[in-house]
Amino acid sequence: MTFNQPLGGNDMPRFAGPASMMRLPVQETFEGLDACFVGIPLDIGTSNRSGTRFGPRQIRAESCMLRPYNMGTGAAPFDSIQVADTGDVALNTFDLKDSVRLIEEHYDRILQYDCIPLGLGGDHTLTYPILRAMKKKHGPVALIHIDAHADINDEMFGEKIAHGTPFRRALEDGCLAADKVFQIGLRGTGYSPEDFNWSRRQGFTVIQAEECWHKSMTPVMADIRAKIGDHPVYITYDIDSLDPAFAPGTGTVEIGGLTIWQALEIIRGCRGLNVVGGDLVEVSPPYDTSGNTALIGANLLYEILCILPGVKYEPL
Amino acid sequence: MTFNQPLGGNDMPRFAGPASMMRLPVQETFEGLDACFVGIPLDIGTSNRSGTRFGPRQIRAESCMLRPYNMGTGAAPFDSIQVADTGDVALNTFDLKDSVRLIEEHYDRILQYDCIPLGLGGDHTLTYPILRAMKKKHGPVALIHIDAHADINDEMFGEKIAHGTPFRRALEDGCLAADKVFQIGLRGTGYSPEDFNWSRRQGFTVIQAEECWHKSMTPVMADIRAKIGDHPVYITYDIDSLDPAFAPGTGTVEIGGLTIWQALEIIRGCRGLNVVGGDLVEVSPPYDTSGNTALIGANLLYEILCILPGVKYEPL
Amino acid sequence: MTFNQPLGGNDMPRFAGPASMMRLPVQETFEGLDACFVGIPLDIGTSNRSGTRFGPRQIRAESCMLRPYNMGTGAAPFDSIQVADTGDVALNTFDLKDSVRLIEEHYDRILQYDCIPLGLGGDHTLTYPILRAMKKKHGPVALIHIDAHADINDEMFGEKIAHGTPFRRALEDGCLAADKVFQIGLRGTGYSPEDFNWSRRQGFTVIQAEECWHKSMTPVMADIRAKIGDHPVYITYDIDSLDPAFAPGTGTVEIGGLTIWQALEIIRGCRGLNVVGGDLVEVSPPYDTSGNTALIGANLLYEILCILPGVKYEPL
Amino acid sequence: MTFNQPLGGNDMPRFAGPASMMRLPVQETFEGLDACFVGIPLDIGTSNRSGTRFGPRQIRAESCMLRPYNMGTGAAPFDSIQVADTGDVALNTFDLKDSVRLIEEHYDRILQYDCIPLGLGGDHTLTYPILRAMKKKHGPVALIHIDAHADINDEMFGEKIAHGTPFRRALEDGCLAADKVFQIGLRGTGYSPEDFNWSRRQGFTVIQAEECWHKSMTPVMADIRAKIGDHPVYITYDIDSLDPAFAPGTGTVEIGGLTIWQALEIIRGCRGLNVVGGDLVEVSPPYDTSGNTALIGANLLYEILCILPGVKYEPL
Amino acid sequence: MTFNQPLGGNDMPRFAGPASMMRLPVQETFEGLDACFVGIPLDIGTSNRSGTRFGPRQIRAESCMLRPYNMGTGAAPFDSIQVADTGDVALNTFDLKDSVRLIEEHYDRILQYDCIPLGLGGDHTLTYPILRAMKKKHGPVALIHIDAHADINDEMFGEKIAHGTPFRRALEDGCLAADKVFQIGLRGTGYSPEDFNWSRRQGFTVIQAEECWHKSMTPVMADIRAKIGDHPVYITYDIDSLDPAFAPGTGTVEIGGLTIWQALEIIRGCRGLNVVGGDLVEVSPPYDTSGNTALIGANLLYEILCILPGVKYEPL
Amino acid sequence: MTFNQPLGGNDMPRFAGPASMMRLPVQETFEGLDACFVGIPLDIGTSNRSGTRFGPRQIRAESCMLRPYNMGTGAAPFDSIQVADTGDVALNTFDLKDSVRLIEEHYDRILQYDCIPLGLGGDHTLTYPILRAMKKKHGPVALIHIDAHADINDEMFGEKIAHGTPFRRALEDGCLAADKVFQIGLRGTGYSPEDFNWSRRQGFTVIQAEECWHKSMTPVMADIRAKIGDHPVYITYDIDSLDPAFAPGTGTVEIGGLTIWQALEIIRGCRGLNVVGGDLVEVSPPYDTSGNTALIGANLLYEILCILPGVKYEPL
Repeated sequence: MTFNQPLGGNDMPRFAGPASMMRLPVQETFEGLDACFVGIPLDIGTSNRSGTRFGPRQIRAESCMLRPYNMGTGAAPFDSIQVADTGDVALNTFDLKDSVRLIEEHYDRILQYDCIPLGLGGDHTLTYPILRAMKKKHGPVALIHIDAHADINDEMFGEKIAHGTPFRRALEDGCLAADKVFQIGLRGTGYSPEDFNWSRRQGFTVIQAEECWHKSMTPVMADIRAKIGDHPVYITYDIDSLDPAFAPGTGTVEIGGLTIWQALEIIRGCRGLNVVGGDLVEVSPPYDTSGNTALIGANLLYEILCILPGVKYEPL
Repeated sequence: MTFNQPLGGNDMPRFAGPASMMRLPVQETFEGLDACFVGIPLDIGTSNRSGTRFGPRQIRAESCMLRPYNMGTGAAPFDSIQVADTGDVALNTFDLKDSVRLIEEHYDRILQYDCIPLGLGGDHTLTYPILRAMKKKHGPVALIHIDAHADINDEMFGEKIAHGTPFRRALEDGCLAADKVFQIGLRGTGYSPEDFNWSRRQGFTVIQAEECWHKSMTPVMADIRAKIGDHPVYITYDIDSLDPAFAPGTGTVEIGGLTIWQALEIIRGCRGLNVVGGDLVEVSPPYDTSGNTALIGANLLYEILCILPGVKYEPL
Repeated sequence: MTFNQPLGGNDMPRFAGPASMMRLPVQETFEGLDACFVGIPLDIGTSNRSGTRFGPRQIRAESCMLRPYNMGTGAAPFDSIQVADTGDVALNTFDLKDSVRLIEEHYDRILQYDCIPLGLGGDHTLTYPILRAMKKKHGPVALIHIDAHADINDEMFGEKIAHGTPFRRALEDGCLAADKVFQIGLRGTGYSPEDFNWSRRQGFTVIQAEECWHKSMTPVMADIRAKIGDHPVYITYDIDSLDPAFAPGTGTVEIGGLTIWQALEIIRGCRGLNVVGGDLVEVSPPYDTSGNTALIGANLLYEILCILPGVKYEPL
Repeated sequence: MTFNQPLGGNDMPRFAGPASMMRLPVQETFEGLDACFVGIPLDIGTSNRSGTRFGPRQIRAESCMLRPYNMGTGAAPFDSIQVADTGDVALNTFDLKDSVRLIEEHYDRILQYDCIPLGLGGDHTLTYPILRAMKKKHGPVALIHIDAHADINDEMFGEKIAHGTPFRRALEDGCLAADKVFQIGLRGTGYSPEDFNWSRRQGFTVIQAEECWHKSMTPVMADIRAKIGDHPVYITYDIDSLDPAFAPGTGTVEIGGLTIWQALEIIRGCRGLNVVGGDLVEVSPPYDTSGNTALIGANLLYEILCILPGVKYEPL
Repeated sequence: MTFNQPLGGNDMPRFAGPASMMRLPVQETFEGLDACFVGIPLDIGTSNRSGTRFGPRQIRAESCMLRPYNMGTGAAPFDSIQVADTGDVALNTFDLKDSVRLIEEHYDRILQYDCIPLGLGGDHTLTYPILRAMKKKHGPVALIHIDAHADINDEMFGEKIAHGTPFRRALEDGCLAADKVFQIGLRGTGYSPEDFNWSRRQGFTVIQAEECWHKSMTPVMADIRAKIGDHPVYITYDIDSLDPAFAPGTGTVEIGGLTIWQALEIIRGCRGLNVVGGDLVEVSPPYDTSGNTALIGANLLYEILCILPGVKYEPL
Repeated sequence: MTFNQPLGGNDMPRFAGPASMMRLPVQETFEGLDACFVGIPLDIGTSNRSGTRFGPRQIRAESCMLRPYNMGTGAAPFDSIQVADTGDVALNTFDLKDSVRLIEEHYDRILQYDCIPLGLGGDHTLTYPILRAMKKKHGPVALIHIDAHADINDEMFGEKIAHGTPFRRALEDGCLAADKVFQIGLRGTGYSPEDFNWSRRQGFTVIQAEECWHKSMTPVMADIRAKIGDHPVYITYDIDSLDPAFAPGTGTVEIGGLTIWQALEIIRGCRGLNVVGGDLVEVSPPYDTSGNTALIGANLLYEILCILPGVKYEPL
């Protein structure tokens, strides 16, 4: 079998060719795929700066630099699994609740196949319907949640569905294995200690950003791997977990965040887990005209691809 | 009686002081006001680029340069009427339909007073609930609608409420005196001739942008004034009516638009009409980092203020 | 027969879906097409600011707002002709002369079909190899060339091939019917009167920008149509013909240029001509972070599509 | 007693409401306040890039995300002290020396009350008149000065008053307890060793940036706290102490600076000190269109608020 | 005699070479020059946005595209007069009044020679000391003043010297022939009719922007030339006279301004006058990251050069 | 002997004066110089984002803040060696191979003198012709190469000369002492392990970015110094070696890079080596409108100057 390959720079200049993820082939169905990239251009769940609706488009555009082989880890995903860009979820941009429904239905369709979806966000509301779809296939999943915020509010402005509530909703709906939920990078200001302690009381492990300062995340990840074992695990990476020095183009910025080196350690530290899906959310292109926040997003999605089950490694 | 005055540049540098509209006093009630500025930070009704939620804040910030007297027309609004900034409508940014409800209720409260509201948008969906409130006080109003788009879609993505539908909804709800509706500056691409002809069939007067090219709008406005007479009239100014050369910072850009000189002629040409309200919509700050689109918005709102009933003129 | 349609906003939000031109279907061959959009991401022929290599990608991205029907002229191109986005020319970005060869070969392949190519530039060097390909099919063509510069230098820095020489080269190679060449919008500074007078001595008609100020271009175009008659004509639109107020994102900016209204009059004034191809060049995305220069480019390409032979009009 | 609270995101969307610091109530007097935020929009003391005059306005705008409780430290300032935004100093933007006088007078008025002023700059010249006012109330103060520059020039271009001279002037005027002055983060280029050694000769402790690389600042702060004891201490935070990766929007950029994690450790390390005032200076909005430098400034001012005497902590 | 020539694009790429005005030779003295470009990097006289201190540097950088010959008018300045870039005035950026003194002294030195200075601003305060120097050589001069503002305030924030007062000060000091002062493009808001009527009462001719809308300025300039005759005349061009669509990068933006075509007509309409000096002020680079406002400034300075006495024309 | 000094801020404001490197005197010859700065405005060798042609101009502009003395290390280069800015290489911007020839010839001219050239890039292709020139004078040189990429491709799009091939070409041409080549900071994605292993097989030392995370580079540099001894060494610093948080303005961005503190440690760690030349490449100004990437480039070039043989140190 031959696998889809990203269009190479010796065949087409990097600034040209299709604006798909990694310049991979685009297909509308999920048949025959081991993994797919899927865009979820949502921003009506966001509470401060908007703009994440353009996240998928710009992540794809900035992914044009990505070559197939991971020089840092030796992963060769395109030698081992079949991957394509399957386009965007057709959201209802005028109704958040309806969009949530449409995302869940879209993921239901994906999960009829043995295809691991990697979502390009979009605001963090989108992880809630994804987790609902995941539960139907995998039962309650473990969660590695990298973020500045716990996103476990009960309500925002009286609403149950918003980008600050997905993990409370997901827990209520039985989508999460609470003792296997890890929230990494939390920080900033809140309304009360409850903003993080609620998580802790549910059994989540909260690793505040302050605990990560000046440190490698590699030991933490070894610990997390041990706790998750072979349980199905979903990875949700909020770009605002990074300090804004690294990722300025996002909507709800908090200072004192993770470094990009820690981000890479976290994702690479997921290698060996039974990862069943992942997403990269909250890239807001209007707030980084250099395109670099989206470029980071594209790279982190590629790194998640590299640690999926079945990916071969060819060490340097 | 003394009237509120904008804070002057000889009392506080223009880059300082309160970030209210024109650095006017802020008050929470509408009592005693002849006119008020009100922010409506909506952007979840928009179909392409978002960001208008920051429109009110940046329009206010860029209004800091505005002095009280209109050097072009001689209007001296702050010598004649009582004006304040009454803050923002507390929208539900996670639910468009609920926000529409909240806007209408807010305007109901304003219109209990003889206070003319001038809205700082925000996407164009907001004019629909305003017109509903207006109808309760004034009956069906005349409408001077300056825009690139007719905004008379029946649905967008299956939704009845969105920034492309307000004037169809308003007509259905009996808010508009159809023969006194003027849509100026329409252009661009559409789905069919129906996109503008529907308006015409309802009795609206549609003045496409092409009819305005290379011309003064002063004669057109004389004609409009004659047709409206003393009927209560609402002015809704979509910043995208302007060619993007003038107003790049907006969400649904169409080329070949009005000039700023025409915009001023249109608003100044409303002098003498029985204006009962107005708004300036679709300023999207992230798409114009110079701030100038918001600055235009601030100026046009000031120009609408200058033509309100009761404003005195002191010619040069 | 059913024609390809741009993906509509009621099926997929405008900020999502494929980043092809107008969200049209993408196909690799030219068979069955009446017209095709083709990207030519060249910028190594440019003498000042670079960046046009990203022109095709951003023109496509900003074309997402374009609906099928032309509200200004009544053109309904997608009801009458078959159009697709056929991707990019695989340029050699390290060798200008080789890129010129590759463009010519690519166009040779297109012109084996009765498919009218509309090029998304890229710097203006690209029109030279296109005209060479055109000559093989059509003989010397008439040319409507809208630009700030005549682009008829003999050499630049000793080189024969650069973005300031294409029309001299094309004339030398017998690609142009000199008495049917119209250069509109020329202006700025030069080395001597010869910079424009050389054109005139070859029989070209030069219309300097100053002749266009404060005027409609409609009468000029009537005159041009009369002179060209039914001769095959190529349209090359350099975005820097526009004053930088309209199109700031370009590389060799000259003040005092055409307006967007004139640009539309020029292109719409080509209706009825035997247009055999066209291009829109010199959009440099890094110099307009709002995206609006690319958006203008997308619109002007659409307008060229609308005046191609065979396009039906459905008047409002 | 009830304390002023920042307007919450469940009452008004974060992008709306008053553009005061943290959306706190605004009051013109200082009566009844334990601490106040005060804007000092000065930029005519700056030697390279200007723009800090817009610092206070944008710091306030970007403070809209700040919630009341400090998730990192447990500080709950709005449960314990009365805080308001007291607006801006009315500077004379055409005369630096007169502005210095006006700032001192303004601070004299504040310090008639037991109100701790937290200044939003503005260029660093402003700390000189503040320290003069501080001395009248507290005698010579200890100083924690975080900066890329020592700001102890005798003259700049022959002038005694400029943003590179405040601490020399302050020492000359008896405002500083020299053995309790700590300058942290100094680096870059200078005219001679004297640029830092003058400080050392006065008894100041200079901690160059190189000494901080790859390290936590927590131990340093323990040492500083021990040396200051309960002496009244003023904190002046120059945003250019941060490496430009974190804070690009400032005027006199020096590479190799502090990290944001170190900045937080420094401010949090001041807890327990007898802090009598503080400022955050040199945010220049035009040089960071993302707004994030101002957002950092807002956060650091909030962190200073959190370590003021009397603030209660509610640990997580 | 051979004249200095701008460095050509065939000798050095336009993006390289010295960053002097038009890439002309730089010299420190004024000897032997017919005209000189001189930078005056002032911005501490500005009342709203700062940044004009970088005007001279960026005007020079963006002047790199300028070739020697004027294709619009046939002027060939470098075939007829000796021109150089003489660098910048060494301002005291910490003291506006001292900077005014330094500018006057610098111009006194220039005017010891028969060298016509063309100033690159810088905020408009700078024209006051220039006019003082001009008076010593030429007596009261005629003035062609293109601007959005009359700049005839008596005081700003109590100060006599600021960018809103130069022409009142100049008249008081006997620098202006009042009946030969023309203020073109005035508009916007003010404190009272007096803001323009004071000018009129002194005998100035005020041409408000509204009088210019939709019109060529050529007839107006014929009238002005007739009134000035051969009186020595100074041209001061404030970039904010242009509508912000053309020149967004400036500090005190007013909508409804002149077009670039009118600007060119105005300057070209000065041909034949006894021009003794000129300046181009208020370019603020931070507010136009495309560089195009500075590019316009460079072009307009070149156009002023082209109409200086002694410049030959070689018509096309 | 007196040495050239950078123009000081007390003689001319930093935002003014000549836009030469560090505001040093400009001279066209290399006679009498110990070191020179030379601009190489190349960007046609780049494979993704262009724009480095403006690197030299903006590096010079942003170098205006640099004072003569190194506060971090005590280096006083302008007390010890003669340095000037010798302008730009006159490249052929339309032909990469010819530009390579021109650069080599330019460097041949420099190296006729005992003048150490420090190049301001420009894309990385430029180091190949420099190394060819170096070889003629010094034989095969040691190389300290800091970069995200190994730049040892055999071909790019079939071309032997491009910004991804210089060090393979240089080795083939005998310009490098392979066992004394150090490539630091390599990372990202590639086509296969060979992308770095080829280097290793030639005897180069490859230090991947991952090996540098969370560490000081000082020990590594001690090791490198030991291995190089007194062999002539060339330093080539690609700005994309830095993580994009520090240096967003570059063309081929890779995440997870070096920190600015490591960059300083690396360059300062070269002190004592027999450095015969250096360059700083790949600054692309359009992708960092703050100017800070160029500012870093200017600083790193200054730091390289500080470690040249003969530079005296005056410790703090």
